[in-house]
Amino acid sequence: MAAFELPIRVYWEDTDAGGIVYYANYLKFFERARTEWLRRLGVGQRAQREGAGGMFVVTDASLKYHRPARLDDELAVAARLQASGRAALTIAQHAWLPGPTGSRQLLCEAIIRIGWVDAASMKPARIPPAIVEKLNQ
Amino acid sequence: MAAFELPIRVYWEDTDAGGIVYYANYLKFFERARTEWLRRLGVGQRAQREGAGGMFVVTDASLKYHRPARLDDELAVAARLQASGRAALTIAQHAWLPGPTGSRQLLCEAIIRIGWVDAASMKPARIPPAIVEKLNQ
Amino acid sequence: MAAFELPIRVYWEDTDAGGIVYYANYLKFFERARTEWLRRLGVGQRAQREGAGGMFVVTDASLKYHRPARLDDELAVAARLQASGRAALTIAQHAWLPGPTGSRQLLCEAIIRIGWVDAASMKPARIPPAIVEKLNQ
Amino acid sequence: MAAFELPIRVYWEDTDAGGIVYYANYLKFFERARTEWLRRLGVGQRAQREGAGGMFVVTDASLKYHRPARLDDELAVAARLQASGRAALTIAQHAWLPGPTGSRQLLCEAIIRIGWVDAASMKPARIPPAIVEKLNQ
Repeated sequence: MAAFELPIRVYWEDTDAGGIVYYANYLKFFERARTEWLRRLGVGQRAQREGAGGMFVVTDASLKYHRPARLDDELAVAARLQASGRAALTIAQHAWLPGPTGSRQLLCEAIIRIGWVDAASMKPARIPPAIVEKLNQ
Repeated sequence: MAAFELPIRVYWEDTDAGGIVYYANYLKFFERARTEWLRRLGVGQRAQREGAGGMFVVTDASLKYHRPARLDDELAVAARLQASGRAALTIAQHAWLPGPTGSRQLLCEAIIRIGWVDAASMKPARIPPAIVEKLNQ
Repeated sequence: MAAFELPIRVYWEDTDAGGIVYYANYLKFFERARTEWLRRLGVGQRAQREGAGGMFVVTDASLKYHRPARLDDELAVAARLQASGRAALTIAQHAWLPGPTGSRQLLCEAIIRIGWVDAASMKPARIPPAIVEKLNQ
Repeated sequence: MAAFELPIRVYWEDTDAGGIVYYANYLKFFERARTEWLRRLGVGQRAQREGAGGMFVVTDASLKYHRPARLDDELAVAARLQASGRAALTIAQHAWLPGPTGSRQLLCEAIIRIGWVDAASMKPARIPPAIVEKLNQ
């Protein structure tokens, strides 16, 4: 699948007294985009946790902040699978501010590594084959 | 026990683009004060959940916002038991901004009702006697 | 205008260790719905702040929590004008969980009073006539 | 100055439905520790913004998540200056879970780069000499 994109509106809750989106909140935006990307692929996270007894947890996150977003902005937040292993996925993520003429500015980009863990022990485990299959379709 | 007070510093995460503490965050501050008040009484919430299989959940919250708090302010956030029943407690809470001369301004006040629920079913249940005893000491 | 409704998906960020939506986050959901309701009426909050030099701030909030929401739920969050005065509006808000057969369960309801303030002084002020006109259309 | 450490308690607001601290919240914890470290050095952020007309913003953040933190845990969150330039600082940060016997487990570590910007234009600018002086004491 090509990059998945989710529109995300900036509300008061997302901003800080600097007048811009608070830096930790891009991790929320990126997680929302990853969740909807997985859901689109047919991987519901609550269902996985209850069914397969496991879940993805973030093991590494690396972010670059390029330009600030502000109240009322509507961002396009992308997720794209960059690499997949037996127990972890690497996902490239971008937050864009669409401009009036079709151009857009990069606000923030990240590389996120998520690993599958057993929900009870929180220990790393192999990603369920059903999920790997959906990722490779 | 008389009113319990917790000092809470305002960080960037707590503010919004209006330059003030975001209105939902007082519910976080009040919950921190309730938690430390219960901990002071000997009621650890994780221990309760794992031991007694239950937890407090908020059933009603009523807030009045009087004055805004700003970045770097250090608030005094209070919790005081107002009424206790078999399955629920009513707690009065206040957030104050201490001034230089010992006076202080009321920023936000709330009445919070918390009910005990079974952790698995989320159904209301009787508050464990050990907790009631600690509240009445 | 009749009640405005906004679909809001529950993400990891919204939940807590009790497995349910954290109680303060309903104030975020309700604020998102109020913001989109105002935007639909033609009232952009950043534009108002930059143009009219003022903004709405919440002065009172009263919430009742009926049932918990969980990860992956998609809520319908409503805003409806209940009363309007010279300097403040009272808004009724509801968060529903739609069921499979068209029925839905009430999760949380709130009465929110928002007052207009001058952005610089944070003092109450009269709601700009252009906004009042849009509310009454 | 050697590493600065701030104790931070984990509350319900910090956790998610996985039963652990939500991954974005470590950026909040790290920002609290940086803020208190700067305050200890005599650099109040609101004062800087109002006086010097500028502020620090995060330009890069790189995090590794080692072990989860849970409700009621009290973390030790550290900030240590790793490198300083004309317009930016690089800060090493760690979140530890102290154990009963004096040992402690590393939960999360990060390298954070903060750059000074003009508060009005959000453009990079030279860190005010008064701040550099305090950092070098």
